[in-house]
Amino acid sequence: MKKITTIVGLVLLIVSVSSVAGSELLTLIKMLHQNGTVDDAQYERLLAEIEVNSLIKQKQQDELSEKLAEVNQVKVEVDQGGLRVKSSDDEFALNLGGRVQVDSAWYDEDGTEQGNGTKIRRARIYLQGKMFHDWGYKIQYDFTASGTKGIKDAFLTYNGFDHVAIKVGNFKDPLMLQDQTSSKYTSLIERALPEAFTAGRHIGVMATTKHKHWTMAAGFFGDKVAVADAGADEGWGLAARATFAPINEKRRILHLGVASNYRKTGDDKSVRFKQQAETHVSGINIVDTGSITDVESTLISGAELAIVEGSFAIQAEYLWTLVERDFAAELDFDGWFVQSSYFLTGESRRYKKGAFGGIKPASIVGRDGIGAWQLAARYSSIDLNDNEVAGGQADSVAIGLNWFPTNTLRFSANYVTILDVDNGPTHDEEPRLFQVRGQWAF
Amino acid sequence: MKKITTIVGLVLLIVSVSSVAGSELLTLIKMLHQNGTVDDAQYERLLAEIEVNSLIKQKQQDELSEKLAEVNQVKVEVDQGGLRVKSSDDEFALNLGGRVQVDSAWYDEDGTEQGNGTKIRRARIYLQGKMFHDWGYKIQYDFTASGTKGIKDAFLTYNGFDHVAIKVGNFKDPLMLQDQTSSKYTSLIERALPEAFTAGRHIGVMATTKHKHWTMAAGFFGDKVAVADAGADEGWGLAARATFAPINEKRRILHLGVASNYRKTGDDKSVRFKQQAETHVSGINIVDTGSITDVESTLISGAELAIVEGSFAIQAEYLWTLVERDFAAELDFDGWFVQSSYFLTGESRRYKKGAFGGIKPASIVGRDGIGAWQLAARYSSIDLNDNEVAGGQADSVAIGLNWFPTNTLRFSANYVTILDVDNGPTHDEEPRLFQVRGQWAF
Amino acid sequence: MKKITTIVGLVLLIVSVSSVAGSELLTLIKMLHQNGTVDDAQYERLLAEIEVNSLIKQKQQDELSEKLAEVNQVKVEVDQGGLRVKSSDDEFALNLGGRVQVDSAWYDEDGTEQGNGTKIRRARIYLQGKMFHDWGYKIQYDFTASGTKGIKDAFLTYNGFDHVAIKVGNFKDPLMLQDQTSSKYTSLIERALPEAFTAGRHIGVMATTKHKHWTMAAGFFGDKVAVADAGADEGWGLAARATFAPINEKRRILHLGVASNYRKTGDDKSVRFKQQAETHVSGINIVDTGSITDVESTLISGAELAIVEGSFAIQAEYLWTLVERDFAAELDFDGWFVQSSYFLTGESRRYKKGAFGGIKPASIVGRDGIGAWQLAARYSSIDLNDNEVAGGQADSVAIGLNWFPTNTLRFSANYVTILDVDNGPTHDEEPRLFQVRGQWAF
Repeated sequence: MKKITTIVGLVLLIVSVSSVAGSELLTLIKMLHQNGTVDDAQYERLLAEIEVNSLIKQKQQDELSEKLAEVNQVKVEVDQGGLRVKSSDDEFALNLGGRVQVDSAWYDEDGTEQGNGTKIRRARIYLQGKMFHDWGYKIQYDFTASGTKGIKDAFLTYNGFDHVAIKVGNFKDPLMLQDQTSSKYTSLIERALPEAFTAGRHIGVMATTKHKHWTMAAGFFGDKVAVADAGADEGWGLAARATFAPINEKRRILHLGVASNYRKTGDDKSVRFKQQAETHVSGINIVDTGSITDVESTLISGAELAIVEGSFAIQAEYLWTLVERDFAAELDFDGWFVQSSYFLTGESRRYKKGAFGGIKPASIVGRDGIGAWQLAARYSSIDLNDNEVAGGQADSVAIGLNWFPTNTLRFSANYVTILDVDNGPTHDEEPRLFQVRGQWAF
Repeated sequence: MKKITTIVGLVLLIVSVSSVAGSELLTLIKMLHQNGTVDDAQYERLLAEIEVNSLIKQKQQDELSEKLAEVNQVKVEVDQGGLRVKSSDDEFALNLGGRVQVDSAWYDEDGTEQGNGTKIRRARIYLQGKMFHDWGYKIQYDFTASGTKGIKDAFLTYNGFDHVAIKVGNFKDPLMLQDQTSSKYTSLIERALPEAFTAGRHIGVMATTKHKHWTMAAGFFGDKVAVADAGADEGWGLAARATFAPINEKRRILHLGVASNYRKTGDDKSVRFKQQAETHVSGINIVDTGSITDVESTLISGAELAIVEGSFAIQAEYLWTLVERDFAAELDFDGWFVQSSYFLTGESRRYKKGAFGGIKPASIVGRDGIGAWQLAARYSSIDLNDNEVAGGQADSVAIGLNWFPTNTLRFSANYVTILDVDNGPTHDEEPRLFQVRGQWAF
Repeated sequence: MKKITTIVGLVLLIVSVSSVAGSELLTLIKMLHQNGTVDDAQYERLLAEIEVNSLIKQKQQDELSEKLAEVNQVKVEVDQGGLRVKSSDDEFALNLGGRVQVDSAWYDEDGTEQGNGTKIRRARIYLQGKMFHDWGYKIQYDFTASGTKGIKDAFLTYNGFDHVAIKVGNFKDPLMLQDQTSSKYTSLIERALPEAFTAGRHIGVMATTKHKHWTMAAGFFGDKVAVADAGADEGWGLAARATFAPINEKRRILHLGVASNYRKTGDDKSVRFKQQAETHVSGINIVDTGSITDVESTLISGAELAIVEGSFAIQAEYLWTLVERDFAAELDFDGWFVQSSYFLTGESRRYKKGAFGGIKPASIVGRDGIGAWQLAARYSSIDLNDNEVAGGQADSVAIGLNWFPTNTLRFSANYVTILDVDNGPTHDEEPRLFQVRGQWAF
């Protein structure tokens, strides 16, 4: 609406400038007429000429205003690094942007070779738009994956209802605070070990209601976008998440959340849970159940807690997974983490309706600033051992430093130590790793 | 040209406003001179000052006009969901857009498991532009495919000749009305069974001439973009299509078309024709010749008929395919379909020079409208049985409902029944299916 | 800065127009006051009214200027075929563009079947931007490759230092003039045979300093973006290049360059050098070492010479490669080429700080011009035979014609003859080929 105000303002200004100009001339003419210097006939002729010229001027300025408005029907912005275009009437918009994350990691192995190296972790572009005010869409592709697997967000939203938004397409199931928070804004480079239980994205339909102090989302989901088993029924699921934020101030937040994710397996009837050592350069899983077969369904439940007190933040989650099988006892896996972060430069984690958002440095590098500097630490734990399944149990301690020179840039360094590995592909090993990331978002 | 008119209009207005302003002052001065109130010397001095000021004003306004024109050298639009930018001089343009189609299907199988599920059917973005007025280009990529296979349109056009356009690159062979019509605007979710004979896209060069009542296109084509057989000659083809529209009014169309597509096989000497049950979620072919070897060439011929009478439309096509083999008798396959559609909300199918175009709802959801609602029905038939090749014969009855809330959105539901399957991978089976699609284009 | 000047110019003009307008009225009033036609009270009243109106006008015009500036915060351009948007304050920018190259080739084989056909050689789009003035980024994807392999440039630059730019991410190692020159602007369709030694792109960090008469670049690199060996250390490398241009005038250049590229192999310990017959449609390598195992490291060194004298240009490079092995003698391969080109239409090859840039035709097709026409010829040689490795030795003579109808378009035809093939996969064969390319960049 800002744009439309600008245009209306321009028009009003142009009109008013014209109406004021020359009033001193009219005053002079009136004086000269009163003085008798200008006679009645001359006076009338002058008034008529003023009238005609004023009408002509008015008409021309109306046309000018109209044409100026026509030229300025959209607002174009590049000051976030990407491109944002929106129509003046707030009916249409299009954003073009993306993110690139480049990682490098060095491993201090303890048996299994992990593999020092580099990796483009994510290279995404997205198009996000608004159509006819009430409809929104997003398509986001990750070039580090092939074909359909690279399709991340691909959804349509309807925002025409008062308090409920409807989403259709491919998007994240509502599960885990660390998953609802963009990978651009996690406190450590990779998410915590219980990410093994991530639901990820499925093709589905979801209703969401968001309020200052609470949110709720519930959806029905089909299978993953890359699943295309010819001649086999795909899996499906039901997912819901509720969050409460009894305290939601700018630098003071108390967030509580619960979520549940039920999934019926497709005809393949298998599931697998696995996780790397909070790194993705290596490719080595430190816990891995392998393919568990004859699975009827899974039920993943989560509990979330987050506290922000000024520059200090704490976030904890517990995930519990139940695997129902056809011919064998049900399996019971779980995991949890507690992480904490602190901005040395005074910023605060930003919270918006059930998830953490981007970091806005208090000062910008290149504008007499040093950017935002953040310390983070985390303890994670996962247990994929149950019954005959020996996926492994592992803990992890991670510490990290993040530097955000601008709101579009991030450089991070993490040191991770894996502890107490019991069973799984790397039984009894305790590797350590140092990992750095460069990230730019636009 | 609209933009350039706007700029010229602005300039003219600014200039004319300046020339009119103050003419009453000149009149007054002349009067006062005549009255003797202003003496000759004063009069000359005033006239000189008016002259100088007028020149200064004129020069400044010329500069202002020039600078205004410079600022407004492009027109940016987002009111179709995508981004459209064009230069004021009509020499350059760039459009950024795409489409996403999300499908879900449920099968009532009759033997072979089809596989209920979901699928991103198409997820495309495109860049289309104009360069130096006469040259156009388009590159369109589909993220549901991997690598080269995802390259759809990738062509350059030259439009500098009077009635003929030249196209070079990767684009659709001119064959079948249902193929020339974008997948965004088909009356049913998937194209009819004879789509088994689609030529698809090849790398080639084509000349096209388009007129109100007729079009012709003829081209020489190499092989598919994804074919890269090291050390083997690729196939090539000749293709032509002619369409006639003796009646071409806004809501009244009679379209007739014929097309022929000759292809010489490459060194692999094989062809294959197959088709799913007018669904792509399943992945199961109901007719399939398998790989036919020792093939010299194929000749596909088609005949098209389309009638639009107000909100009612009918479309019929017949395809006939001849497979010439080295050491065996030639093969003869064919297929046809008749489809009909009706807009409950009064719209009419839009026709443009040999193909059907997009749907513009008479009213828009969110602007006191209900969008466009369309009913459609189709009977399709295909026969891939000949000589020893038992690819199968099948018929299909499909009915559908389309809802276009805006011109950028489409929601469709189809019910398809497969009939009379004879031979092929699903001999004697008559599956039925229900399929829905959500689509947004931008 | 051009944009900001425009805005400031607009504001100054508007202000100055207002201050000049009506000075003749003030003159008249003063005269009438001197004449006694206007008395002192009237004179004061008129002066006051002029003062007030002038202040009002001034204020309104300040607002108008301010709002005009607000509307015009970015500059949008499409006159290069792509999209370029930059903010008026020179702090942010975003370019969207790409290139498509479509090839077709016919082979006159001499034994090994090469395979006539067509190919989309490159189909790239890129996003390039500037953020907070000092930071730049680029992401470029090639749709002819799958997944990670398609990621070309994906780097971030910091330009805040005085003479040194820092680059982080995935980009080309600094090696070979023919590699530093974009594939859009090579004189022949494909690069010369010694391209077998290309370092290509790696994930790394590099410092560059560029001056009119010399440049230097040195970097530390990890492995290729597509290398993701789970559980194996990746390779790494050091690379540097220095160029000198004692003569660097608009149409007169003398360029000298040296470069060195050391790479330590990863845990796979293998390298391979191979090259096709200066064509990529075929896919057949005419020289190929196959996988050389137990390799410790490679050292590639290069020397460059380029001369431009008006429309005439000559370019020569020599590449020498040393392969250090664990249990066998070191291997020694080399290659060189000399190429020459001449613009029939008078243009000159453009040189910019260590690399050749784009061609700007003196006249444009469609604007009464014929574009730029260029002849090119090249002799290339490569030797991959050493010790027990018989990768093959081959020479090549290529002649070509390039037509650039506009600066965004290129059509090329090349005729290549392969000579003196000794060992390798196509021993003693001398194939010839004719190849054409259509290219558009935007």
